[in-house]
Amino acid sequence: MVGRQGIKEHSGELDVTLKEWTGYRDSVQDELKEIINRTPPSLRNILRYHMGWENEKGCARQGKPGKFIRSILHLLSCRAVGGDTAQVLPSAAALELVHNLSLIHDDIQDRSHERHGRPTVWKLWGKSQAINIGDFMLALASLALLKLKDNGVPSEEIIYSFHLLTEACKELCEGQCLDIEFENRVDITVEDYLNMIRKKTAALIAASTSMGAYLGKGGEKAQYFHQFGEALGMAYQIRDDILGIWGIRESTGKSIEGDLRQRKKTLPVVYALRESKNKAKLKRLFSQRHIGVGDIPIVVEILDQSGARDHAQNLIQKYCRRALEQLEASGVERNHQAALKQMANSLAERNY
Amino acid sequence: MVGRQGIKEHSGELDVTLKEWTGYRDSVQDELKEIINRTPPSLRNILRYHMGWENEKGCARQGKPGKFIRSILHLLSCRAVGGDTAQVLPSAAALELVHNLSLIHDDIQDRSHERHGRPTVWKLWGKSQAINIGDFMLALASLALLKLKDNGVPSEEIIYSFHLLTEACKELCEGQCLDIEFENRVDITVEDYLNMIRKKTAALIAASTSMGAYLGKGGEKAQYFHQFGEALGMAYQIRDDILGIWGIRESTGKSIEGDLRQRKKTLPVVYALRESKNKAKLKRLFSQRHIGVGDIPIVVEILDQSGARDHAQNLIQKYCRRALEQLEASGVERNHQAALKQMANSLAERNY
Repeated sequence: MVGRQGIKEHSGELDVTLKEWTGYRDSVQDELKEIINRTPPSLRNILRYHMGWENEKGCARQGKPGKFIRSILHLLSCRAVGGDTAQVLPSAAALELVHNLSLIHDDIQDRSHERHGRPTVWKLWGKSQAINIGDFMLALASLALLKLKDNGVPSEEIIYSFHLLTEACKELCEGQCLDIEFENRVDITVEDYLNMIRKKTAALIAASTSMGAYLGKGGEKAQYFHQFGEALGMAYQIRDDILGIWGIRESTGKSIEGDLRQRKKTLPVVYALRESKNKAKLKRLFSQRHIGVGDIPIVVEILDQSGARDHAQNLIQKYCRRALEQLEASGVERNHQAALKQMANSLAERNY
Repeated sequence: MVGRQGIKEHSGELDVTLKEWTGYRDSVQDELKEIINRTPPSLRNILRYHMGWENEKGCARQGKPGKFIRSILHLLSCRAVGGDTAQVLPSAAALELVHNLSLIHDDIQDRSHERHGRPTVWKLWGKSQAINIGDFMLALASLALLKLKDNGVPSEEIIYSFHLLTEACKELCEGQCLDIEFENRVDITVEDYLNMIRKKTAALIAASTSMGAYLGKGGEKAQYFHQFGEALGMAYQIRDDILGIWGIRESTGKSIEGDLRQRKKTLPVVYALRESKNKAKLKRLFSQRHIGVGDIPIVVEILDQSGARDHAQNLIQKYCRRALEQLEASGVERNHQAALKQMANSLAERNY
């Protein structure tokens, strides 16, 4: 089943944009490879596996790379204000490192066996090494930021970039803390949920866009880019929630049932626990220690009937509109907004 | 049993020094409290518990605080070169945060149930939250370094401090990676071992002393302080290994058998696996998945008879001498070396 709302056909213009994104993604990958390849073999192999560049035996593989959303948004934001994207490749790499550390630790926390259709790091190397490799990536992210100096970024700006990235990391952990706490609760409000994803997901995306605009010398425009990234991050996470329930495994590379079995308080669940006519039954199902495979279709049916999906999709539209408004308000020239607008729309409608 | 080598009686001079260390420790604790108390309650409570300031219910407790070795060495190094210790309290706090993050993650990795005689963070809050709180502490460490700006430290120096701390974090993870790998091996050489502890333990202590001397405007003296800290860190870890086998629980707060049961390749074990006349038997014991409680006395007896303890103690002396030589070589005035010398000696002979 492909999302009910479907995905817009690629226009010729979007094809050009996709080509540009691919170029950015490749540049960030090269930057990451330079950083990662300098690390000792035992850690490097795990990192190269996680990034999808190698299989677990260390042989090169041609797989679908990650989405690189944060780094592409970073570079697009830098360019939108007239900045030099080549100069900020190290900060783009730092953002991807933080994001990937959060994935590796998240997979341990959620007991996820697969990511992008491949065994997760902890499944192959054990939880101890997976914890360690995540910590290592956070150190590499700092090293990446320090590399900005070699590209001529002034010390003051590097320090402010550290400030932006560190605040985002802090919020990410705060959001993750709430996400874990929420698993054991059935009384989460939509407001609680929005606060949680603002920290867990939107903060790092907001740091990506604002740091891009800041390092691109966008001055006061950076705060609009922060708001743009935050709103886009909210839309992105809600879309993720929808895909976690109604997505197709081949596109997302994730087990569809993971979020539900883990009793994650995704937006559709939070909504249905409050609004569904079967909320008592849903509450009972979510009060178990784990939701059994057999109960999943029952949960999905309750969610389907509750209107939770439309509610979530409406919120995505709302955040997406807000993101685009902030982009307009930034005062950046229209033609420089185009690529960011397209990215925002495509993320809000994605099926992957 | 108190360590065979015993501990030197406290001289009057040492009492003065102890008072000074306590003052430094209290100042760093205050700095840490300021940082930690600004975080959201759910994370703050775990941090305050781990630091020993509260019990698990959030009630204040008067417990023995940690040793604060890294931050005290940082402040003493700063002062030794004529620097302002009040100015560098944030970097002292950053060092403690990194160290404590490594303890929290280490306890999950080693499945340790107790630290300082109290349940570990993961035992009380689960592994997911313990992983998360560690990540959070690394973000707080960066925030602490950024606070140096408020104390008038120039941007260039903050960036160099980030460089020193980040390199140490990277090495810490590399060392941790080796430590975990070594658990499954019985062919570790003393050289392998020394390389592992140089990264796992000595790197952060070296960063503590060199960053202290650097921020204290010690200029080229900082590299001698790096060597001093590294050698001291080696001595410190080997002493830790000895206490892990022959220490007393009441002093160390750790289970004595932890290292052995976990098949840790501590120096006495590495030595005995190569030099003991019973090495074949020892190898068999260490080739099991876990060493049973019943086998521990057999292992300890083999270690006792092998001369592993004297060998380790001799290496401590060697590293301690090297540390003091570097301190001499730094050209710091003799009376400014005294406190650091005393700290080095007391760490090498500690029973706690």
